Amino acid sequence: MKIIEGGVTAAKGFEAAGVEASIKYQDRKDMALVYSQKPCVTAGVFTSNIVKAAPVIWDKEVVAHSPYAQAIVANAGIANACTGSQGYECCKQTAQAAAECLQIPADAVLVASTGVIGMQMPTEKIAEGVKKLVQQKADTIEAGRTAAEAIMTTDTISKQAAVSFEVGGKTVTLGGMCKGSGMIHPNMGTMLGFLTTDAAISKELLQEALSENVVDTFNMISVDGDTSTNDTLVILANGMAENPEIASKNEDYDKFREALNYINTTLAKMMAGDGEGATALFETKVIHAKTKEDARKLSRSVISSSLSKAAVFGHDANCGRFLCALGYSGAAFDPDNMEVFLENGEKSLLVYKDGTVTDYPEEEATQILSAPEVRVLVDMKAGDAEATAWGCDLTYDYVKINADYRS
Amino acid sequence: MKIIEGGVTAAKGFEAAGVEASIKYQDRKDMALVYSQKPCVTAGVFTSNIVKAAPVIWDKEVVAHSPYAQAIVANAGIANACTGSQGYECCKQTAQAAAECLQIPADAVLVASTGVIGMQMPTEKIAEGVKKLVQQKADTIEAGRTAAEAIMTTDTISKQAAVSFEVGGKTVTLGGMCKGSGMIHPNMGTMLGFLTTDAAISKELLQEALSENVVDTFNMISVDGDTSTNDTLVILANGMAENPEIASKNEDYDKFREALNYINTTLAKMMAGDGEGATALFETKVIHAKTKEDARKLSRSVISSSLSKAAVFGHDANCGRFLCALGYSGAAFDPDNMEVFLENGEKSLLVYKDGTVTDYPEEEATQILSAPEVRVLVDMKAGDAEATAWGCDLTYDYVKINADYRS
Repeated sequence: MKIIEGGVTAAKGFEAAGVEASIKYQDRKDMALVYSQKPCVTAGVFTSNIVKAAPVIWDKEVVAHSPYAQAIVANAGIANACTGSQGYECCKQTAQAAAECLQIPADAVLVASTGVIGMQMPTEKIAEGVKKLVQQKADTIEAGRTAAEAIMTTDTISKQAAVSFEVGGKTVTLGGMCKGSGMIHPNMGTMLGFLTTDAAISKELLQEALSENVVDTFNMISVDGDTSTNDTLVILANGMAENPEIASKNEDYDKFREALNYINTTLAKMMAGDGEGATALFETKVIHAKTKEDARKLSRSVISSSLSKAAVFGHDANCGRFLCALGYSGAAFDPDNMEVFLENGEKSLLVYKDGTVTDYPEEEATQILSAPEVRVLVDMKAGDAEATAWGCDLTYDYVKINADYRS
Repeated sequence: MKIIEGGVTAAKGFEAAGVEASIKYQDRKDMALVYSQKPCVTAGVFTSNIVKAAPVIWDKEVVAHSPYAQAIVANAGIANACTGSQGYECCKQTAQAAAECLQIPADAVLVASTGVIGMQMPTEKIAEGVKKLVQQKADTIEAGRTAAEAIMTTDTISKQAAVSFEVGGKTVTLGGMCKGSGMIHPNMGTMLGFLTTDAAISKELLQEALSENVVDTFNMISVDGDTSTNDTLVILANGMAENPEIASKNEDYDKFREALNYINTTLAKMMAGDGEGATALFETKVIHAKTKEDARKLSRSVISSSLSKAAVFGHDANCGRFLCALGYSGAAFDPDNMEVFLENGEKSLLVYKDGTVTDYPEEEATQILSAPEVRVLVDMKAGDAEATAWGCDLTYDYVKINADYRS
């Protein structure tokens, strides 16, 4: 597997664009298109929130019932959630507008929205945006980057990644982009994530690989504990790599899963590190847990804890808070037989052992916690399972951004 | 039932004190004593966190196995959590010191701590503090207030309440105090809460009434989603009101439960409204839910949501966030058949109905959200169950307080 440049346009036959449609933001790109020159097998995972945005409802139908998908139209600024039947009608109109311009069926168009909940979409602006997107679409790296920028809301950096690998003598490429900074506590997907691959793969295995992988990637990050109404992660596979179709769980499938895991982990970590107001990526790795589920609960509980996040912001080695968060995670364990370390990639410091906070040097702990990527390593000494979760620190800017998001 | 002045010393035969012991804080009272002139029936609920502070372990034993309890010694500044066997030894020494001064058995002494996790307790200072407490204890209202002040950490106000009611021609009094401002997301109790009553009541019914009531009071508040290692709520009943003992679930028991519910609700709301950095009490009431459990989940999810809390701080009627939090609460419901109102005691504004955010006047919503007590009322239109949860807004000061709590 080779890490390569680019995102959604890295794989063969995929084009993208990003344009200004003035949906809510002014003077910036706020609509994106991903288009495949050939029809695609598609799979998706969506928010578990009962209050689902209209585009989530639309996309679930496309993934479940359309014979194939070929385009994604996304916008930033308005989430099209809590918008009732008018919101769903807008998804339909958007898909129809794109279908007309692209000469494909409307049910091959996925739509996605992110932004303020409860506002109706300006349908005429969307229709104009769609026209511009189709005119400007291109298969270049630059076009992919522009699309990634156009879906940002409070994100401070655009997020994309791509890899290539060999299947049956053919080079297969998988790339993706995502956005997300607040309302990030995904449960079956994330704010918006779009993956493209030229792999030939069956719809069934594509969905299985995606559903299985999000559990350890996008579902292991949290910015603020709020599971969005719009979480969407879709993948388009157009088969243009001309590899022998991956239709059984063989070696080729494993290679595909490895690539998928790399892309999803990379994008998920970028999202956590770019959490609203964040100054640091806050990782928690749990090793030697009794079960995988325990390891996930424990690691996720620490990176989700407001007090732990505030301690990271303050570079304060208040490790009692990490212990506290492990303790209410819902996983059973023996606090008298485990170890906790603070790490920053270079140094590792034992701060808790056998039921007691150790007598560690405070300055060293502070130094470790001052790094841009901070890790809490927890050794449960109870089994072989492990899991990693990613979050960020809790800062003044998180409060500032969210105390008046709509203005 | 009559609301009366005072807290833990309101009931007959209870004395209290608060003194400076310089455990961690300087120049303020940081140790408190509650003492009953007669042995008490006792009941308690404690944190569900697996990482339990030493005093929690001590108190659980006293409540379960001691023939009676007669005193509580509490300190602020150090939590005595993650302190291993040395921490437990300190609880024992504290109880022994108090037992000696008060001429009661050591296993009749409850101990409680709140503050920084992971530091060991200065046992000599504790012993000196105990002596001072016993010298200064009194049965006055003033003594109760001093005790309530001595257990504060980041609290900005001391918290106490008392009521009296008639049982079998006798006046029975129930009072209490609590502290808590951060790491508040109780699950079987709260940071520290101490209730005293002169009611004659069986141990079994005392425990049942307490366990049942916390589910709808202390367990329905949240400041930051972090369930503490020290959550403790204990009640002492010394029988000095000389009412016929409450030993069956009769009318007298109902009166006692009503008084208990009033005291616990009052203290819980005070704690939520005094959340770290808070500028407003943030209440969510869910009515017409399918089940009581649904109503609890839904209301608690809204007041726990970082984004909803930040919106309240910004007086921003971003009601999509409330809907979002209802949607990921874990309770099933139909978002297309329900209503959401913003209320402040004077005004009520419909902001969501039948799947769509209504066209409400923005200024009116902002005005409602600018009150010191803000309520989201959710009508699920699905049944008869209801529940209320209390939290506070998320502010810059919460981050400030917690980014460097230990210094």
